Amino acid sequence: MPALDFDTDPSRYRHLRLEIDGPVARIVLATDEAAGVSPGYELKLNSYDLGVDIELHDAVQRLRFEHPEVRAVVITSGLDKVFCAGANIRMLAQADHAWKVNFCKFTNETRGAIEDAGAESGQAYLAAVNGNAAGGGYELALACDEIIMVDDGSATVSLPEVPLLAVLPGTGGLTRLVDKRGVRKDLADVVATRSEGVRAKTALAWGLVDAIAPPSKFADTVQRRAQAAAERSHRSPGGPGITLERLDRSVNDDEIAYPHVTAGLDRAAGLVTITVRGPRQDAPAGMAGARDQGAAFWPLAVTRELDDLILWLRTNETELGTWLIKTSGNSEAVLGYERLLAGALRTDWLADEIKSLTKRTLKRLDVTSRSLFALIEPGSCFAGPLLELALACDRQFMLNGQWDGDVGPQAGLAPAAVFLSAANFGAFPMANGLTRLASRFLGDPGHVAKLEQHTGRPIGAEEALDLGLVTFAPDDLDWDDEIRIVCEERASLSPDALTGMEANLRFAGPETCETKIFGRLTAWQNWVFTRPNASGPEGALRRYGTGQAGIFDRKRT
Amino acid sequence: MPALDFDTDPSRYRHLRLEIDGPVARIVLATDEAAGVSPGYELKLNSYDLGVDIELHDAVQRLRFEHPEVRAVVITSGLDKVFCAGANIRMLAQADHAWKVNFCKFTNETRGAIEDAGAESGQAYLAAVNGNAAGGGYELALACDEIIMVDDGSATVSLPEVPLLAVLPGTGGLTRLVDKRGVRKDLADVVATRSEGVRAKTALAWGLVDAIAPPSKFADTVQRRAQAAAERSHRSPGGPGITLERLDRSVNDDEIAYPHVTAGLDRAAGLVTITVRGPRQDAPAGMAGARDQGAAFWPLAVTRELDDLILWLRTNETELGTWLIKTSGNSEAVLGYERLLAGALRTDWLADEIKSLTKRTLKRLDVTSRSLFALIEPGSCFAGPLLELALACDRQFMLNGQWDGDVGPQAGLAPAAVFLSAANFGAFPMANGLTRLASRFLGDPGHVAKLEQHTGRPIGAEEALDLGLVTFAPDDLDWDDEIRIVCEERASLSPDALTGMEANLRFAGPETCETKIFGRLTAWQNWVFTRPNASGPEGALRRYGTGQAGIFDRKRT
Repeated sequence: MPALDFDTDPSRYRHLRLEIDGPVARIVLATDEAAGVSPGYELKLNSYDLGVDIELHDAVQRLRFEHPEVRAVVITSGLDKVFCAGANIRMLAQADHAWKVNFCKFTNETRGAIEDAGAESGQAYLAAVNGNAAGGGYELALACDEIIMVDDGSATVSLPEVPLLAVLPGTGGLTRLVDKRGVRKDLADVVATRSEGVRAKTALAWGLVDAIAPPSKFADTVQRRAQAAAERSHRSPGGPGITLERLDRSVNDDEIAYPHVTAGLDRAAGLVTITVRGPRQDAPAGMAGARDQGAAFWPLAVTRELDDLILWLRTNETELGTWLIKTSGNSEAVLGYERLLAGALRTDWLADEIKSLTKRTLKRLDVTSRSLFALIEPGSCFAGPLLELALACDRQFMLNGQWDGDVGPQAGLAPAAVFLSAANFGAFPMANGLTRLASRFLGDPGHVAKLEQHTGRPIGAEEALDLGLVTFAPDDLDWDDEIRIVCEERASLSPDALTGMEANLRFAGPETCETKIFGRLTAWQNWVFTRPNASGPEGALRRYGTGQAGIFDRKRT
Repeated sequence: MPALDFDTDPSRYRHLRLEIDGPVARIVLATDEAAGVSPGYELKLNSYDLGVDIELHDAVQRLRFEHPEVRAVVITSGLDKVFCAGANIRMLAQADHAWKVNFCKFTNETRGAIEDAGAESGQAYLAAVNGNAAGGGYELALACDEIIMVDDGSATVSLPEVPLLAVLPGTGGLTRLVDKRGVRKDLADVVATRSEGVRAKTALAWGLVDAIAPPSKFADTVQRRAQAAAERSHRSPGGPGITLERLDRSVNDDEIAYPHVTAGLDRAAGLVTITVRGPRQDAPAGMAGARDQGAAFWPLAVTRELDDLILWLRTNETELGTWLIKTSGNSEAVLGYERLLAGALRTDWLADEIKSLTKRTLKRLDVTSRSLFALIEPGSCFAGPLLELALACDRQFMLNGQWDGDVGPQAGLAPAAVFLSAANFGAFPMANGLTRLASRFLGDPGHVAKLEQHTGRPIGAEEALDLGLVTFAPDDLDWDDEIRIVCEERASLSPDALTGMEANLRFAGPETCETKIFGRLTAWQNWVFTRPNASGPEGALRRYGTGQAGIFDRKRT
């Protein structure tokens, strides 16, 4: 199958319509049945596959950058009697395990972006459930700030995954029922085992939806609530939208290159070396200058490229298990851009959106099932926001001193330094609600306060080691061997064990709805996916639609 | 294989010695290599299997009830140069999936009981790591309040599961490193991928242990710290210990019976009907009377029986997937015992211990991978602590009205009522730190305060339904059919999907180290256990010790 591309735009949508009407936008889901991303299934009843979700992801992103006037977004269906039937079951049944897991992760991230839009961007999402919302369809509604359901005596919301497919409502469904909406666990148990679902009045009584309306009043009710949500919005002012132009990406067998990000692929070693480049010029004096640069404005451009690269590598390069993350450029320039954006927060929507996109991209890295090692070398610019990249990694290696020798492009570069800035103390919380530094020093919270006194100045390798910002700081004599050995060691370990280990070590501290979805719920779903009761030849997921029920090993585990 | 029995006592131990020396006790681990609970492996190097852990569980429990004078417990090894090598690898390699998962759950619960002893009973645990502590061996130490390690230039602590076996340190290891001890995630990453482990000085520097001492000073250091811990203890006073006599349990093919608890087994339907009986007599006037009754004292006896039954059914009856939980007896008598115990808390160790055991038993129910339905019928006594049993269930069914007909033992019984009491508002927190009521009404915290005004009086079916205490309240006409249908429906669902679903719905709200271990870490471990990279014929777990390395599918998932 050809590489899957996450970069799209409305002109290429097959499954969604994006309608803008002043402060209220509508995302209308009407899947093209014949346009599945893989062969072998039809996207009936507004069921979705990764292709549909790529469009949804793009629409959610684009609304934030291209339509600053939008303050509420209605998700609804363009079909009659059907809101959304969830993930396409035949697609799931035929997909291999890694595909299912990666697909679920991306859909979960997009639902998280929907919640983030309401909380951070002042773009509240309302699900206008104008027909049956089943499984992932109802889970999509659950990710919205409000759910308005048509009370027509036939429409239902349902989570039929357990009874029909022997898998979980794993796109946040179980977690959002009890944790986000506070549905009683016994009622949630009923909902999640009743394949026929729940009609509007019961759905409202049980807290599964926020409002219901008969068909004659449904459109009005939705519109009124959307207007009200738009009026409550705290979206920052600022100029017109920024067009998110198509990414400039070139791909060949051993490199993926964007203007500011490059990934070198070493298939024999199972390695990717990602280099993120700092800005080529200093930050403009104000946000007007940023707006003039549009999508080429460095903080926006570099983040979009990195986000796209993460998705590309996750989906298309599953056997490259270790990512080495480097930066190159001028730290002071990086910090200049940070100051510009930080100074405009909450007064300029573009500054808000860039910060929020950076946060989401860093979170995407946090939940990426690859081993992440930061390599901090002379010429790098791990400063402020880019230092977060290093802190997201499983380990940080920093070269102590200069490169040896006096030839080549590395000769004469000053020793590496990292820079702490305000960006490291609150701007980019992880899914657990803590900064990466607070998560790192969970056992010594006072240390974070101490680190705050070291912002804005270069911190060399020995001091960084002493401050606990890096794991190891070999000198030039040892560097190559140490990195080579650690990469070889990593490549020798079981990919599954590493995924499980990293998922547990990366999220110390408190849990949130979000960490529960990516940690607990996802882990159980992955387990359930591997079990013969779901995915075996006689499992319910594989047999769905054949007229034969799944045959189960009755042993409870 | 014969049914496994969790009821033991020190006279039958094969693997532990229990030494009492005033306020300090020692649990000395010296496994009998030939006494594995299954054939096919030898318990070398203090490695453990379920049989060893049953003894450890018994010792931890017994110290609390039989030795009120003990205020600190040292866990150490009776072998030279080896503390504990963790779970026996050959045992794990040959065990089927359900066995591994059940084994890990029980070992996790016992490590939780060790932590609970320090926090609740004033019996702090100290791990005296007098030799290599590998994998589950180091995880056992991590569950202790303090870890003292010998600094002899050779002893190491290590978590070699990922590099050697392609599984996780799943007995709390990963979670306790970063969440309990606050070890930096990058250092934890190094520890969990370095099979040779870490020697004492580095272990101390990285926060893996609390103290180190050379061999010449090791015993003194341990003794001094144990004495200090004993002196800090808040253990309540009270009389001498209570002997935990052997449980009076009879087992046949369709029933397991204890004096206060009976389980009827319906293999065709996959059902267990558990009946917990209230006290036969009123509570004594004071704790002296309770002490006179010893292990026969109703709250202690009924809880020990229920705890044993849960373990028995989990291990020996894996295909009975639904448990129906009933009670029978007098609610006022139940509440009388509760008042006696509540009045003596923090002034009488026995009252403290019974409360704490009840809490742990309820938690064992919470993490049991069986569907739990409470049946609240006329003649039942779901009052206070016993109401917690119903609240732990996935659903609560309460008969509305009396049984029809005027013959048989049920005739003339008054309609069922439940009783709220102080026990439901704080005495028995779940692993998430919340009461079962607070977890149930997470979306409406004010409702819990409202419920508090309804303590101490009978609440009938309609009111219980209205208050949200029960899920459904059918009358006698519908009762039998409704229960039969719901049990048949449940039995038709995939056991794995139910396990995953229940694990997500039962723990709304905040997460703790404990919920992370049973939720996130366990789920990932279960997933890893099913993966061919670990458990396939060429997987690392299966190949360990053969001289052949595991062969891995390199795809990252």
